[in-house]
Amino acid sequence: MSEQRRLSAGIDIGGTKIAVGLVDRSGQIVCRQSFATPKEFQSAVSSITLTLGELLRAQALEFSALAGLGIGCAGPVNPRTGLVNNPYTLPGWEGGNLITSLQSRVGLPVYLENDADAALLGESLAGAARGFDPVVMLTFGTGIGGAALSGNAVFRGAAGEHPEIGHVPVMRGGAVCYCGRSGCLESIASGAAIEKAGQEHGFHTARDVFVAASVNNSRAKAIIDQALDATACAAWALLHTFLPQRFVLGGGIIDDHFRLFASAIQQSIDAAAMIPRHEIAVVKAALGNDAGLVGAAALAFRGTG
Amino acid sequence: MSEQRRLSAGIDIGGTKIAVGLVDRSGQIVCRQSFATPKEFQSAVSSITLTLGELLRAQALEFSALAGLGIGCAGPVNPRTGLVNNPYTLPGWEGGNLITSLQSRVGLPVYLENDADAALLGESLAGAARGFDPVVMLTFGTGIGGAALSGNAVFRGAAGEHPEIGHVPVMRGGAVCYCGRSGCLESIASGAAIEKAGQEHGFHTARDVFVAASVNNSRAKAIIDQALDATACAAWALLHTFLPQRFVLGGGIIDDHFRLFASAIQQSIDAAAMIPRHEIAVVKAALGNDAGLVGAAALAFRGTG
Repeated sequence: MSEQRRLSAGIDIGGTKIAVGLVDRSGQIVCRQSFATPKEFQSAVSSITLTLGELLRAQALEFSALAGLGIGCAGPVNPRTGLVNNPYTLPGWEGGNLITSLQSRVGLPVYLENDADAALLGESLAGAARGFDPVVMLTFGTGIGGAALSGNAVFRGAAGEHPEIGHVPVMRGGAVCYCGRSGCLESIASGAAIEKAGQEHGFHTARDVFVAASVNNSRAKAIIDQALDATACAAWALLHTFLPQRFVLGGGIIDDHFRLFASAIQQSIDAAAMIPRHEIAVVKAALGNDAGLVGAAALAFRGTG
Repeated sequence: MSEQRRLSAGIDIGGTKIAVGLVDRSGQIVCRQSFATPKEFQSAVSSITLTLGELLRAQALEFSALAGLGIGCAGPVNPRTGLVNNPYTLPGWEGGNLITSLQSRVGLPVYLENDADAALLGESLAGAARGFDPVVMLTFGTGIGGAALSGNAVFRGAAGEHPEIGHVPVMRGGAVCYCGRSGCLESIASGAAIEKAGQEHGFHTARDVFVAASVNNSRAKAIIDQALDATACAAWALLHTFLPQRFVLGGGIIDDHFRLFASAIQQSIDAAAMIPRHEIAVVKAALGNDAGLVGAAALAFRGTG
């Protein structure tokens, strides 16, 4: 039945904000509303249901008109069981079950992915990854998120879990990351890592380091060069594992510095002798903050859990 | 129709030897024969067809009794087009098309994978990878071969190509590998790399280095420790990309030294904080040299190109 339904609901849950929207099969957002993330799980479920009801009423639709409801949630979450397990950005939500809670309220199939996977699905349906497979998306923000698409589906590892691509090793030594290793990509090239390295030289924020590097401050430049070198090394690892047709880059750092990071990755593509170089490119994410909402809705159209 | 047929043919093509066998759906080899790899492509195709005909006659069967014919061939090969492009171990075969040549002679569907992928499929059907998904197989021999299985299929990258997992970066510096980078796994932990490093200290072969290291010769031990450290680092990259449920280790070096390499990988599993550690294990390949033949035959049962 769901094949005929024109719209599905997408829910994008972050640590500070929840966006709820109705999305059509082409990935266009028909309408949306957002609100601050409630501290308590049950009130979040209530707010999501109420907001969705309002959006539907404004379109003169009922819940049953939707193909389903898809959620992209700041991870770790378990897409199979629906459980949230994110003490970092959703403290107080532990043990809440997004799938069963929402399913019982809206009477529709509910699907869940973590936010990085949802963003990649959004870019795949209606953005920069459209028509490509496999795809790796890297999101450079405070941390570095990663997601992979293969066979037109989110890549899942052991126990159905999402691989933490931001933690591929890129150098020896350095401070130990919370992933358990020192010298992983996130520990060198993330916003937090650049900020921390900058603070040792009197810079306040990662942005300050980028600005100083752009006018050839040597200390700032060394920090950014190290981040780019780490990105190129991680790209080599990704080219020899997922071998993606497209690298999609997103996140706050990429909004301002896409060319720097794309060119670091392109250098690895150009130097790698054993891959189909001309089939591979680096592109900028096209949907911005909408990617998660669109991708969440896409889950419901795909009808996969 | 092929679902009812009990047997398929598997062809394992290496640089020195070609094995042809009839294999049943459980992965048991019913009969087999092998011969030296012909230098000329057309005579290889003739020999394969003749040998297969003999095996079938001995079973009182005709070509039409088979579900199909699967080939595992020393790569690079193109599984989609059938073209062989391997000047390294199959010089003189360039431009030969295994799929069309054999299809026209045997009148059966013909499927092709490179030898590493075929070995992984064999281990997946009837060996150490049976029942697990995703799986990464690493074969430590003269070089380091790698293959990944995901969603019960061989993982394919851009342009349908096989990712060269043996070339993930593991350290800075060192001699440049033919992959285009220095410090990749193969350039440090392969048999050829260990032999080369050993020769700088008076050892003749990789085996000599392993033997000397086992009796605590410090130079030999440093070479082996570096190879194990490179393996642990590569495992970290693989845990944060493919996140396999099983690492399957095979190849000549593993026959003698499985515990050393398995324990290096296990150390990375134990230290990685963001993965489902208890779902992941390192196992030894179970089919030895038969894996490629069994996996090739499995291609025909799967009916995928």
